[in-house]
Amino acid sequence: MTQRIDVNCDLGESFGNWQMGDDEALLAGISTANVACGFHGGDPVTMVRTVERALELGVVVGAHPGLPDLLGFGRRVIEISPEDAYAYVVYQAGALDAILRARDAQLHHVKPHGALYTMLNDQEELAAAVADAVEAVMPAPALYWPAGAEDGALVQEAGRRGFRIVLEFYPDLVYTPAGRIVVERTKRPIGAELAVERLARFLQEGIAQTPDGEAVQLVAESICIHGDGPTAPQIVAAIREHLEASGCSIEAVGAHAHTGVSKKMAR
Amino acid sequence: MTQRIDVNCDLGESFGNWQMGDDEALLAGISTANVACGFHGGDPVTMVRTVERALELGVVVGAHPGLPDLLGFGRRVIEISPEDAYAYVVYQAGALDAILRARDAQLHHVKPHGALYTMLNDQEELAAAVADAVEAVMPAPALYWPAGAEDGALVQEAGRRGFRIVLEFYPDLVYTPAGRIVVERTKRPIGAELAVERLARFLQEGIAQTPDGEAVQLVAESICIHGDGPTAPQIVAAIREHLEASGCSIEAVGAHAHTGVSKKMAR
Amino acid sequence: MTQRIDVNCDLGESFGNWQMGDDEALLAGISTANVACGFHGGDPVTMVRTVERALELGVVVGAHPGLPDLLGFGRRVIEISPEDAYAYVVYQAGALDAILRARDAQLHHVKPHGALYTMLNDQEELAAAVADAVEAVMPAPALYWPAGAEDGALVQEAGRRGFRIVLEFYPDLVYTPAGRIVVERTKRPIGAELAVERLARFLQEGIAQTPDGEAVQLVAESICIHGDGPTAPQIVAAIREHLEASGCSIEAVGAHAHTGVSKKMAR
Amino acid sequence: MTQRIDVNCDLGESFGNWQMGDDEALLAGISTANVACGFHGGDPVTMVRTVERALELGVVVGAHPGLPDLLGFGRRVIEISPEDAYAYVVYQAGALDAILRARDAQLHHVKPHGALYTMLNDQEELAAAVADAVEAVMPAPALYWPAGAEDGALVQEAGRRGFRIVLEFYPDLVYTPAGRIVVERTKRPIGAELAVERLARFLQEGIAQTPDGEAVQLVAESICIHGDGPTAPQIVAAIREHLEASGCSIEAVGAHAHTGVSKKMAR
Repeated sequence: MTQRIDVNCDLGESFGNWQMGDDEALLAGISTANVACGFHGGDPVTMVRTVERALELGVVVGAHPGLPDLLGFGRRVIEISPEDAYAYVVYQAGALDAILRARDAQLHHVKPHGALYTMLNDQEELAAAVADAVEAVMPAPALYWPAGAEDGALVQEAGRRGFRIVLEFYPDLVYTPAGRIVVERTKRPIGAELAVERLARFLQEGIAQTPDGEAVQLVAESICIHGDGPTAPQIVAAIREHLEASGCSIEAVGAHAHTGVSKKMAR
Repeated sequence: MTQRIDVNCDLGESFGNWQMGDDEALLAGISTANVACGFHGGDPVTMVRTVERALELGVVVGAHPGLPDLLGFGRRVIEISPEDAYAYVVYQAGALDAILRARDAQLHHVKPHGALYTMLNDQEELAAAVADAVEAVMPAPALYWPAGAEDGALVQEAGRRGFRIVLEFYPDLVYTPAGRIVVERTKRPIGAELAVERLARFLQEGIAQTPDGEAVQLVAESICIHGDGPTAPQIVAAIREHLEASGCSIEAVGAHAHTGVSKKMAR
Repeated sequence: MTQRIDVNCDLGESFGNWQMGDDEALLAGISTANVACGFHGGDPVTMVRTVERALELGVVVGAHPGLPDLLGFGRRVIEISPEDAYAYVVYQAGALDAILRARDAQLHHVKPHGALYTMLNDQEELAAAVADAVEAVMPAPALYWPAGAEDGALVQEAGRRGFRIVLEFYPDLVYTPAGRIVVERTKRPIGAELAVERLARFLQEGIAQTPDGEAVQLVAESICIHGDGPTAPQIVAAIREHLEASGCSIEAVGAHAHTGVSKKMAR
Repeated sequence: MTQRIDVNCDLGESFGNWQMGDDEALLAGISTANVACGFHGGDPVTMVRTVERALELGVVVGAHPGLPDLLGFGRRVIEISPEDAYAYVVYQAGALDAILRARDAQLHHVKPHGALYTMLNDQEELAAAVADAVEAVMPAPALYWPAGAEDGALVQEAGRRGFRIVLEFYPDLVYTPAGRIVVERTKRPIGAELAVERLARFLQEGIAQTPDGEAVQLVAESICIHGDGPTAPQIVAAIREHLEASGCSIEAVGAHAHTGVSKKMAR
């Protein structure tokens, strides 16, 4: 039996004349795109172009809202209030949703970016506000979240509210012993071979490794590659090749969990 | 028989800690609000607060998208492309629409702000792009437009596409002999008495006056007051009083034209 | 003998078409202006106008640099790096200094705004970077700092480097038992009478009070009034009247400490 | 006798995490850098890094101020007022100058960017305001300007005021029959060979060519390469090689005109 797995990528992060990432190459290799919405990266024109190309290639589109901080690419913590968080996420995801609906598509999920994600692990009130925002923009709310961080405030809140939760494995990031990914202001590129090695280990043994070689147990139904690294297209291509060789089918997740890699999230 | 007329106001133009206009006073006196969407004024939190208060008071909400120019309050021409214009309007109106839909309301219309409005009088390609944008965000597109400028590129395009068009009379602006309103970077306040005098003349004779006293024939079904002038609340209150004393009922426009003041737009 | 005391005010915080504070009224009553530099408030045109009016009135001008956060008015903590902090302060203070030098004036001091100030109390590396920035823009560096916070990282660093340090008493803010002022995202206005009462107590007994009535010992040679409160002009006028009635002369500080209220900062 | 010629490049145009151009490669090949100042590109951290690297390599630094339009990279006309123009240029050039002065260097010149440059060809009042701004930030004002556009409003004004004017030849841009360069929102890359061919022709015959092959007479003492094209480093390297092979010495211009290529500007 063929296992199905999702491959998602953060993209659409170019801004005006500044290019970031090779979105064309990335979109050709993935099933799901998390599109930046103009606060940490992306801009209205980039969003329209990215959505149109994604839909042409059959890639589903989720919103990747961030903090209002172009200078810091949304990777610096800003002490926003829950009222701010709600409004920022509805605004960004709503703008993207309008672009999608005009093309008979719809928002597939919401995935917080950078420091906003980090803050949503620990701040309960912020998490409740963002959960409200996701409900505001999606009739059937769905959230992408890193596997290993299932105790995060937003994913817990989303679980209580019955959101569809898609856990992700990150072959290009470092894990802490507690299972958390480390978000840095500028990503350090890794080689495609290392990413595939980590993916293979995850697929076979269900574990990631910390820098000290400690094993972290993970359950995920999606693989996430960051689009802003210089090696991202190679990583996506290598991962795609590995997955296909392993008999996995790369498909966006639907309303029900993928059967293969994913298991029920234990909370 | 009671005449019905709409009174609309540009508001929600505060930005962060900076207040602009007394929206609470304005919302209490009008039937329709054109809400700024963050490019020339407004911000996500202001938008949420403005929408919530408008809906509480039974005021319908349209989008008031502008050029991306906070420093110039959207009143400076920027040479944007049609692709820019489409994306900027869908982004802004879509963000506002998401806030409305989360509250079981919907976008009532789109009304371009400031220099974007001015450019849409003369630039055909820009007008076609913005018409596309309005169609993208509204199943039954509606456009607010100044009476006297029925030959403007966007309103002509909207007419060809069958949009609901609501023409507006501006008692607080100056008209040119050609019937065009003059948009300035900073509005000069006028007195409530002068505004009522102009309105009375318009209601009785269907004309506005140029600075030289020339008469301009106008047909309109809405009265527009700018919210950013220091005297705006007094003007709204005085106009409301005058309309009620004249037997006019202040109501938002629906799918069909108001019977009283409005007539069929001649094109 | 006449005591000399400085009265300073944060102003120039309007942004584009958005007014904040009644700078004309404030400038007429103070000796020193801390001018916003475009990151949390202010913009190039506002800066030029503010500097020109200040110089006409004999008010000396210092830079009031903030975090790059117009939406949050610079009152939200952002996790910037020391490299960021250095560059942000040199950029802002340098821009203001150019406006001053073109008018044969010079930067009188630097005073960090809002959350940047707060962060500079506790973050040593950030403080060292900002001290470098002040040295970069001033041949004889001078720093304004709240009295009661003499243990803050930046003021300590400035002391070690021999900066001229001007400590300030805030009659319109609340003090903690530890002597720290509380910076909030939106200021709550206080009455002019209360401000004068607090000032009188400070002048006579050298103390401020916490909300619980606890006394905090303070030494200061400047009185600071926030310009963005609705009652700021009244507070400035009342304080001016009180100081003059008490035989104090309102003068900007020079290279040497004021004799009257100020004492040697104990570290 | 060795001819001296200047090679200048617009750079420092990265913004936050977005890279633009290979500044390290460019700085190694040129004598003069026009550094973006944060309005159309660049940011405070990028400015500091760029200035430090330029000074290490003996490259002189001028300000490259633009319109406040990150989204359009300063290449879209914005209808700003003379008061805006003055303040924007003093602010940007002043910020850069502070970074230079802190390193015992000084502003070498001012060179308007993109649409601001274009507007300064035709708008007299804007030109006078920008000339005021250059005088505000430089004791001995110097302006870079494209050869062929000596009838432009700003360069004419600068001539009347006795500014040092450095005319530039652009081997990577297209010329109109009137001798004007064409500024586009996104630069189309050209090959290094074509650039060298154009440069050789200019050095030998003093002419540029229009797309239709028409010859345009030009006099210049500096060669300008745009830094944001993908082939810019190759063009700079090829031009450097050609100049050296032709016996030209690449040197920044001083207070007096270069003897070789440059001639007295005829107006």
